[in-house]
Amino acid sequence: MIVNFSQRAHNHNFEADWAVRSLLDTDFYKLLMLQFIWKHFPDVPVTFGLINRSRTVRLADELDETELRRQLDHVRDLRFRRSELIWLAGNSFYGKRGIFEPEFIEWLAGFQLPAYRLERRDGQFELCFDGSWTQSTLWEIYGLSIVNELRTRKALGRMSEFELDIFYARGKAKLWDKIERLRGIPGLAVADFGTRRRHSFLWQEFVVQAMAAELGNSFIGTSNAYIAFKHDLEAIGTNAHELPMVLAALADTDEQRVSAQYRMLELWQRTYGGALLVMLPDTYGTTQFLANAPDWTTGWTGIRIDSKEPAAAAEEYMDWLVARGADPRDKRILFSDGLDVGEILRLHGRFAGRVKHGFGWGTLLTNDFRDCHPRGAADFDPISLVCKVQEAAGRPAVKLSDNYLKATGPAADVAQYRALFGTAGVANVPVVV
Amino acid sequence: MIVNFSQRAHNHNFEADWAVRSLLDTDFYKLLMLQFIWKHFPDVPVTFGLINRSRTVRLADELDETELRRQLDHVRDLRFRRSELIWLAGNSFYGKRGIFEPEFIEWLAGFQLPAYRLERRDGQFELCFDGSWTQSTLWEIYGLSIVNELRTRKALGRMSEFELDIFYARGKAKLWDKIERLRGIPGLAVADFGTRRRHSFLWQEFVVQAMAAELGNSFIGTSNAYIAFKHDLEAIGTNAHELPMVLAALADTDEQRVSAQYRMLELWQRTYGGALLVMLPDTYGTTQFLANAPDWTTGWTGIRIDSKEPAAAAEEYMDWLVARGADPRDKRILFSDGLDVGEILRLHGRFAGRVKHGFGWGTLLTNDFRDCHPRGAADFDPISLVCKVQEAAGRPAVKLSDNYLKATGPAADVAQYRALFGTAGVANVPVVV
Repeated sequence: MIVNFSQRAHNHNFEADWAVRSLLDTDFYKLLMLQFIWKHFPDVPVTFGLINRSRTVRLADELDETELRRQLDHVRDLRFRRSELIWLAGNSFYGKRGIFEPEFIEWLAGFQLPAYRLERRDGQFELCFDGSWTQSTLWEIYGLSIVNELRTRKALGRMSEFELDIFYARGKAKLWDKIERLRGIPGLAVADFGTRRRHSFLWQEFVVQAMAAELGNSFIGTSNAYIAFKHDLEAIGTNAHELPMVLAALADTDEQRVSAQYRMLELWQRTYGGALLVMLPDTYGTTQFLANAPDWTTGWTGIRIDSKEPAAAAEEYMDWLVARGADPRDKRILFSDGLDVGEILRLHGRFAGRVKHGFGWGTLLTNDFRDCHPRGAADFDPISLVCKVQEAAGRPAVKLSDNYLKATGPAADVAQYRALFGTAGVANVPVVV
Repeated sequence: MIVNFSQRAHNHNFEADWAVRSLLDTDFYKLLMLQFIWKHFPDVPVTFGLINRSRTVRLADELDETELRRQLDHVRDLRFRRSELIWLAGNSFYGKRGIFEPEFIEWLAGFQLPAYRLERRDGQFELCFDGSWTQSTLWEIYGLSIVNELRTRKALGRMSEFELDIFYARGKAKLWDKIERLRGIPGLAVADFGTRRRHSFLWQEFVVQAMAAELGNSFIGTSNAYIAFKHDLEAIGTNAHELPMVLAALADTDEQRVSAQYRMLELWQRTYGGALLVMLPDTYGTTQFLANAPDWTTGWTGIRIDSKEPAAAAEEYMDWLVARGADPRDKRILFSDGLDVGEILRLHGRFAGRVKHGFGWGTLLTNDFRDCHPRGAADFDPISLVCKVQEAAGRPAVKLSDNYLKATGPAADVAQYRALFGTAGVANVPVVV
C-alpha cells in the first residue's frame, strides 16, 4: 500500500475539525422559529444560557477553554452559503414550498451570531448568549453540539488507534441492533432529533444515513437542516418552549402571562399553517394547557410530547380531543422525550391505529456509546446539557414542564409561575438525557 | 475532503487482492514437517485432496472457477523471499535458534509448488495436489485459505458499502467481546490457529494484532509463519496427522502399520528436540496410542488434543502419565479442536494448576461472523473444509481419529484400519468446524 502522503500530512497539520460546519447545522425548527421571531418580535433582547444538569461531570475541568473558544468563534465566522439559502427558499417543507419569505432569506444572508460570554465557575462553564432574540436564538444548538463534541474528542484522545477502532465498531453494532429492531414494523414513523446532544457531526450524519438506507418509509427525516439539505431528506420540527417562555416573560399581567401560551399559537398559525400546526403543550404544564385551550386549538394537526410520561400524556390529549368532538385518528402525536428503541416499540404498540404518531429520537440515537468503551470507562455516557432562554427584555424566562425536575428559571420565579399555572398533572420523573 | 485519485483508480483497476501473499503464509508446523519430510522421505509421491465436509454448501456453484484458478496459479508463482528465508534461518523458534538447516533453507529458496488438478463434481470442487511429499504438502494450507477467502469475497460482493461497514463493525464487536472475556485470566495461554479456515488474510492479521495488543502474556503467538514474521510474534505448532498417516500407508505389514505412529515420533525426536516434542496421539485413536506407546514417549513435552472430547482426552493423558510415573504438572496439553471462548474458559478452569496447558484457537477466532450479516444471511457461517493426504506411494492414506465423523480415507481402508487399531475410546461427536 502506497502511503497517502497528502492525507497523512493533512491529518497532522489541518487547523481543526469544526464541530459546526454550517449555520444550517441546527434544528430545522430553529429556522422556523427564527422567521417567526423576525416577523413578530425582532427587537426583544434575549439571553440564552447553557446549563449542565449532570453536575458530577465537571465540564470546565474536562474541556480545554481555548479549544471551546476556537470552536465558538468559528461559528461566528460562518455565514449562510448561497446554496443553503436557495435550498431554504426553494425546497418544500412539510409538503409546502415557499415557507420562508424572500425578505427573511435576504436577512439570513447577512446573519452573524453575536458574541458569547464564557466564564468558569465551580468546575462548570457559564456560557451565555446575549442579543436581540433574532440574533441569540440560533446559538442554542451550536453551543450544545460544540460542547458535546469537544467532550467526545477529549475522551477519544485518551484511546489508542486500536481502541478507537473497537469503540466505533461497537457503536455501529449497537446502532445496527437498534435499527434492526425497528425494521419492517408497519406504520412506524421515526425521525432523527439528535443534533444537540450528538456524539459528533460525522456520527450523526452516519446514523441518519443508516436510518435512511434501512428503515424505508419508517424513517421520516431529520431535525438537522444541514443534513436534510446535504442528503435530500425531509427536515422535521416545528417549534419549541422558547416561544411561550419569552411571550410569558414579556407579559405585564398574570392574565396576559397565562394567555401568552395561546397567543403564541395564534401568531404561529397566522405565520404558518397545515402540518406545521403542532402544539407543544407542556411549557407550563399540559393539564392546565389543555383545560384552558381555545376551541380553535382542536383544529391543529397535533401535539409534541416532551416531559410527561408519554403514554399518559398521549391518553390525556386523546381524551381531550374526544371531549371536544374531534377524532384522535385524524391527529398526530410526536413523542420526543428520552426515547430509545424499547420505548418507541412500546408506544407504537399502544397507539398504532388509535392516533397518528411519530417519534423524534434524540440523544440515544446519535450519542449512545454506553458500554462501548474498550476499557469500560463511562467517558461517553451522554450528559444532560441544555441551553435555555434565561431572560427576555430583562425579565427572567421560566419553564415549568410536566416534570418538576425539568423546570428552568430562578427558583423564586418558578414558584411564582407555579402559583399562577398550578401543578395539575406535574410529576417527578428522573431525567435520563 | 480531497478525493484520493490514485487510490480510487487503483481500487478499480488493480489486478487482484491475493488470498495468499507469501509462501510463509502457512501454518508454521508445515515448515517443520517439510524439513522432516525433506530429510527422511524426500521421494515419496503423495497426493493431497480438498474435502468439503459441509455437503449442503455447493462450493463449485458458489465460487468462480476462473478466479479460483487465478488464486491458485498465483501461489505457484510465489517464491520464498530472501527476507523470509533469513528469518527462518536466524529466528528462534520455541526458544531455539537454527532449527532449520542451511541446506534446507537453500532448498526452500528454489521451492515451487507443483501443478494442481481441479475438477467439478456434484456442485463440489475436486481439488488435488500431486507430487513428491516435499512438493505437495504445502498446498494444504494455501488451498484451504484460498477457497475460504473466495467464499468470503463472494458473500461480501452481495453486500452494499453500508452493509459491509455494519458487517465488519459487528465482527469487530464480537471479536472484542471474546477478547474481553479472556483478558486478565491468570495462567491462560492462547495462540491463533486460524489460518486454514480464516475469513481472509487481512482479517486474520487484524485478529492477531488485537490479541497481541490486548491479551499480554496470555497471547502466546500464531501458527501463521508469515504473520509471526511480519509482526515479530512467536510462531506456534509442531506436527500434524499427515506424518503418521503417510508412514502408516507406507507400511508393508500390519505390525509396521501399528508401529508407524511411534516410528514417526522416533524420527521426529531425532530431528527436533525439547519443546517441539509434542505428540498428536489421535490419528488412529488416542486410547490405543497411549496403551501401546513406548516408554520414552512419557519424556515428551506434551500432547495436542484434536478430536476427542477435550476434558476426557486430557484426563486420559494425565492418568497415563501418572501410571507411568510422570508428573502431569511438568507436561503441556495443547487443546486445538473447535474451540471458542466458553470452551477455553471451561477447560482452563478445569485444568489450571493440574497440568500446563494452552489453546490453539482456530476457526471461531479468525472466521466467526455468525449473526453479523445485516440481513441475517448465513453466508459467512464457516464450513468444515479440510485438505488431507489421500495417497502415499499409490496406497490410500487413512485417518481414524477419536471421532467416527472425522475419519478420512476410502471406506474399505478405514474399515481395515479400524479392525487393526480397534475403536477403544472412539465416539461420535458432531463436527462444528
